[in-house]
Amino acid sequence: MNTFGKLFTLTTFGESHGAAVGGIVDGMPAGITIDIDFIQCELARRRPGQSHITTDRKEADKVELLSGVFEGKSTGAPIGFLVRNTNQHSKDYENIRDLFRPSHADYTYYSKYGIRDYRGGGRSSARITLSRVVAGALAKLVLQQQGINITAYTEQVGNIQLDRDYHQYDLSLIDSNPVRCPDPQKAKEMEELIAQVKSEGDTIGGVISCVIKGCPVGLGEPEFGKLHAQLGAAMLSINAVKGFEYGEGFAGASWRGSQQNDTFLPTDDSHQHPLCNIETNHSGGIQGGISNGEDIYFRVAFKPVATLLMEQQTVNMEGESTTMDVQGRHDPCVLPRAVPIIEAMAAMTILDTLLISRTNRF
Amino acid sequence: MNTFGKLFTLTTFGESHGAAVGGIVDGMPAGITIDIDFIQCELARRRPGQSHITTDRKEADKVELLSGVFEGKSTGAPIGFLVRNTNQHSKDYENIRDLFRPSHADYTYYSKYGIRDYRGGGRSSARITLSRVVAGALAKLVLQQQGINITAYTEQVGNIQLDRDYHQYDLSLIDSNPVRCPDPQKAKEMEELIAQVKSEGDTIGGVISCVIKGCPVGLGEPEFGKLHAQLGAAMLSINAVKGFEYGEGFAGASWRGSQQNDTFLPTDDSHQHPLCNIETNHSGGIQGGISNGEDIYFRVAFKPVATLLMEQQTVNMEGESTTMDVQGRHDPCVLPRAVPIIEAMAAMTILDTLLISRTNRF
Amino acid sequence: MNTFGKLFTLTTFGESHGAAVGGIVDGMPAGITIDIDFIQCELARRRPGQSHITTDRKEADKVELLSGVFEGKSTGAPIGFLVRNTNQHSKDYENIRDLFRPSHADYTYYSKYGIRDYRGGGRSSARITLSRVVAGALAKLVLQQQGINITAYTEQVGNIQLDRDYHQYDLSLIDSNPVRCPDPQKAKEMEELIAQVKSEGDTIGGVISCVIKGCPVGLGEPEFGKLHAQLGAAMLSINAVKGFEYGEGFAGASWRGSQQNDTFLPTDDSHQHPLCNIETNHSGGIQGGISNGEDIYFRVAFKPVATLLMEQQTVNMEGESTTMDVQGRHDPCVLPRAVPIIEAMAAMTILDTLLISRTNRF
Amino acid sequence: MNTFGKLFTLTTFGESHGAAVGGIVDGMPAGITIDIDFIQCELARRRPGQSHITTDRKEADKVELLSGVFEGKSTGAPIGFLVRNTNQHSKDYENIRDLFRPSHADYTYYSKYGIRDYRGGGRSSARITLSRVVAGALAKLVLQQQGINITAYTEQVGNIQLDRDYHQYDLSLIDSNPVRCPDPQKAKEMEELIAQVKSEGDTIGGVISCVIKGCPVGLGEPEFGKLHAQLGAAMLSINAVKGFEYGEGFAGASWRGSQQNDTFLPTDDSHQHPLCNIETNHSGGIQGGISNGEDIYFRVAFKPVATLLMEQQTVNMEGESTTMDVQGRHDPCVLPRAVPIIEAMAAMTILDTLLISRTNRF
Repeated sequence: MNTFGKLFTLTTFGESHGAAVGGIVDGMPAGITIDIDFIQCELARRRPGQSHITTDRKEADKVELLSGVFEGKSTGAPIGFLVRNTNQHSKDYENIRDLFRPSHADYTYYSKYGIRDYRGGGRSSARITLSRVVAGALAKLVLQQQGINITAYTEQVGNIQLDRDYHQYDLSLIDSNPVRCPDPQKAKEMEELIAQVKSEGDTIGGVISCVIKGCPVGLGEPEFGKLHAQLGAAMLSINAVKGFEYGEGFAGASWRGSQQNDTFLPTDDSHQHPLCNIETNHSGGIQGGISNGEDIYFRVAFKPVATLLMEQQTVNMEGESTTMDVQGRHDPCVLPRAVPIIEAMAAMTILDTLLISRTNRF
Repeated sequence: MNTFGKLFTLTTFGESHGAAVGGIVDGMPAGITIDIDFIQCELARRRPGQSHITTDRKEADKVELLSGVFEGKSTGAPIGFLVRNTNQHSKDYENIRDLFRPSHADYTYYSKYGIRDYRGGGRSSARITLSRVVAGALAKLVLQQQGINITAYTEQVGNIQLDRDYHQYDLSLIDSNPVRCPDPQKAKEMEELIAQVKSEGDTIGGVISCVIKGCPVGLGEPEFGKLHAQLGAAMLSINAVKGFEYGEGFAGASWRGSQQNDTFLPTDDSHQHPLCNIETNHSGGIQGGISNGEDIYFRVAFKPVATLLMEQQTVNMEGESTTMDVQGRHDPCVLPRAVPIIEAMAAMTILDTLLISRTNRF
Repeated sequence: MNTFGKLFTLTTFGESHGAAVGGIVDGMPAGITIDIDFIQCELARRRPGQSHITTDRKEADKVELLSGVFEGKSTGAPIGFLVRNTNQHSKDYENIRDLFRPSHADYTYYSKYGIRDYRGGGRSSARITLSRVVAGALAKLVLQQQGINITAYTEQVGNIQLDRDYHQYDLSLIDSNPVRCPDPQKAKEMEELIAQVKSEGDTIGGVISCVIKGCPVGLGEPEFGKLHAQLGAAMLSINAVKGFEYGEGFAGASWRGSQQNDTFLPTDDSHQHPLCNIETNHSGGIQGGISNGEDIYFRVAFKPVATLLMEQQTVNMEGESTTMDVQGRHDPCVLPRAVPIIEAMAAMTILDTLLISRTNRF
Repeated sequence: MNTFGKLFTLTTFGESHGAAVGGIVDGMPAGITIDIDFIQCELARRRPGQSHITTDRKEADKVELLSGVFEGKSTGAPIGFLVRNTNQHSKDYENIRDLFRPSHADYTYYSKYGIRDYRGGGRSSARITLSRVVAGALAKLVLQQQGINITAYTEQVGNIQLDRDYHQYDLSLIDSNPVRCPDPQKAKEMEELIAQVKSEGDTIGGVISCVIKGCPVGLGEPEFGKLHAQLGAAMLSINAVKGFEYGEGFAGASWRGSQQNDTFLPTDDSHQHPLCNIETNHSGGIQGGISNGEDIYFRVAFKPVATLLMEQQTVNMEGESTTMDVQGRHDPCVLPRAVPIIEAMAAMTILDTLLISRTNRF
């Protein structure tokens, strides 16, 4: 249950305040040049303390690859990796040792396992998504070579929302601002909203969009391995995610078929599109659960972070009413740091289905 | 890839116009009384031709259980089952033999496999969801015994939408109208809209809500087997689904943490809630990926059916432009018949996680 | 648990005296010509009542493919199939309804599940291996096209044993005698031994050898998916199997390394062996868990059938001492009919690893 | 493919001369006291350099648990662990960089992946079994609490073989001699044989026996997850293993059913054996693939180590004939150090099936 994927798999371990977080990537194709700087760069995009609107926890998050790479290339053997936890302030959590924090996993973990590591949320901490970024970076190294590119960006924070779709933005601007939004003006507004929410000890949710370009036709496996079902499962496994939609999504539920169908046209480029062009892309690049060669795009909803820097009412482990005041260092909004996680999960999913698709016929 | 689940699993086979559709349920706990009438009733809720707003294809959909049941009880052995296809009109599909129907899986299947069964959509037909209803009915038989109940209903068709949440409806009314909506007035409006859309040869989408009551605390497995990730994957694997959200979902993305957090209170019923009560349920019954004992609720978005009874432009398998006029018998709106499928997938998911949770500790 | 394989999978259902036995093959590559006569021929090799030394149960064992085949070719969709049980004599088993037959699965099934289908052994009957032969035949159709051939034969029955290895026999003779042994003289002796044992109401064990020719280098996945570990698991899952060895096996345990090592030589055929020849093949075609292009060969030990046509002492379900006298129709020796099952399991294993090997590198 | 198990799983990484070897155990039940000294003791039994008849490579093999343990108990979260490689002499392998060592995995790995880590065998080295011992020790901690005990011992080295079965030895003597054999006299002879073989630069194979006591009735899942099939797969995945048999194994293939059947008797101890006693145990504690409460016993054959300290003929990576003279530090016989690995694999298998058996019925 701590393993993701079928052929390209990631198994993870680690807690917020344990010795280290890390994982094992299995099924990495052999012969891929492993660019360790690229992996570290991806981690830097997820790193705490990267700007004034993220948590103050400061960690270098330096990854060590322990296996599976020889003379700079993947060997086909599993790639073990870890990142040491170096900046835990476990004492900050002493006061919640016997409390259940509202809307956190404290209560459910304790009920399920009869024990919980209360320090920083333990296994339920978003810190463990770090391993996904490492594995996602490895997957990206393979996908880049296949001409597949994945880009996520912050589309909404609270009530501030982009009003155009991804075609109308310069996606290269995403990492140029701390919220990772391709609209510089909206990015500024989002940043200010997050700063304000933070100053109030509160938190805020939002929506991230993701687009995948260059996917070949044929990824995804019916009936239960439909590509969007796999992408959805991947996204919903990220901490604080509450919803997933692709193509026209929920909004398209009120459309008619005659509006939403995508018409096939004769091809104008037999190299890229051997059989046909597709006029519109309401389908989001996936039809019948299988990629159709068009851009794949989807949206992911995040709830506001549950940790508030204000007094909240709760109960303790004896079931008695009490109040709590959280210390610790927390993100007022997870979206800026979640962008690389979304990309990582998408990359792993696409690579996994790409590998499986090689076995569909001889 | 045609298998769902980890311990309670369903593997399916079949095409719209093949000899039969069916499957194998593995991991059915032993000793459960198998009520074959109940299974057949669930199939009747999914059956084509059940009302004037569904497809005209008329099939009895009589299921035969082939194994795994002895003297009326499950034995722990796999339960094989099948439903013969009896009312195929394959000739209706001759004219699309060499065409790709817009927004169907024709093009992607052909590209992926180099061959496709064009009759009625073949493997991509929604007819194959019949197997899910059988397996879901088996799962429900186990869950009922554990006091867990699952209810889905049509919440939105086109622009007609319920304006209250599930607490405020009498859910026993759902099967009393052909759209399966608990609000009789809205149900009438939805029914009229579907009839009108049908008369125009067009189709319409919508949203189904689902609520699960009586779940124990502790279902769902971090980190990748979070309960909502499993539910989401299950729902997104259903034909025509474009989105999934639980708890406050996409709408909650614009809330603040101080609004969305659920406060723990001292318990007022130590039997049902041994440690605490939870004041609100914005979380949708799941915290940190694990059920917290509150109602689990989620919403599923469906696109309009791709098959229109009107002329559409497309290309043929040589890539030449052409037009098509579909014959055949089709649903103008899948939602009424999708309600039992949603329930079935939820039942299988909950049972699977329930079984796994028995291994978390001794 | 009733599923075999990772990419090419077989899931089975059925009991000896239920309505049918069958299964679902998933992951069949698309575009393969499905020779239904070949499948039926393979079943005929496993069929009861095929000679005087097998069980008297007479069944046509006619298989029906229910899906996954269109216009004579595989489509990539799962292939559902079934064989109706037509010649059950369930009444023969009335007298063992409340007994545990010695060395059968009656006691363990009952203890595990709290219920058992006593008729003909229910799910534990060797009749259910029929599904393996169907799936194995499908796998063979793919492997033949890749130049891979699998041949099993009876090497030992009781104390009658072949004294030469497979190179020294004409393997085309295997199906020319009822015990499926390539040495006509030994075959005769084995046949007589089985007939004699049968006349005494007793049973006898033996050993089957299997050789796989034409395997490419590179099948098998370290560390837990070693090719011989997968083959061993496949063989040990067959009813009545008690041992598996490959290469020099148990006998080689007393050798020295200098005797057992296989020396590499320069290639004399760069097409078949691009890098090198291998002088001897003590390794059995597998080194480090990966096929090396040489013949793969292994041996499988079967215990004598547990059902004796003589009085035996046992206890009933209340734990009281009693005696039993089995009616029913049984094989005095399973080996002749197990030969095609061994081949089927080998074929599925090799195809599964062949598919996975396509994902090792781009 | 580097993951073992279904509910209690081990995923491993590492190479002989990489930075570290380690793994992740997932599915460890929560609340188990983690005795780190016990784990380290188990590793010491596998450690290189522990006696004059094992390899001279000297490593402390100190394990670090990185997660999943809190205040001395398992939390239900995955347990990541690693052992740093500290005593690599990679230069010893420079001379085989371009050679394929006979009967090693050099040729198959290179052919499969197009690249190989030649240092010490890379991923194919037996050093990576270290991770299995750690995971097996964790499994043993759970099993001990359930009254299940697993003991393996060296039964044969070359032609020196025990002549009695496990009942007739004091198994507490196993770790009292360097070959891990319960017969002190035979142990002495084996030790001398290994020393002599070592002095000649040669190697020798052998057989290890294993017995599992205290297993409840009901472990193992038909049809493909039969307990002995899972045990066999586990054992065959260990480096240098060539065969597996349980119960009467290959020898029993020449018996008659009337000799090999185990008779049920009325119980004389309704606590331990609620329904019946079993007079003999030719079945090896497993009937129909399910444990029957009797001792489970099996035997595992090892080939002689492929690395010889003598000149051997081979080819280089250009396919040219050459000779090689291996340096490095190697075991003349793997059996003494393989005993704890066998136990570890058995422990993981039993725990995995024990967990699954909890889901067979409510």
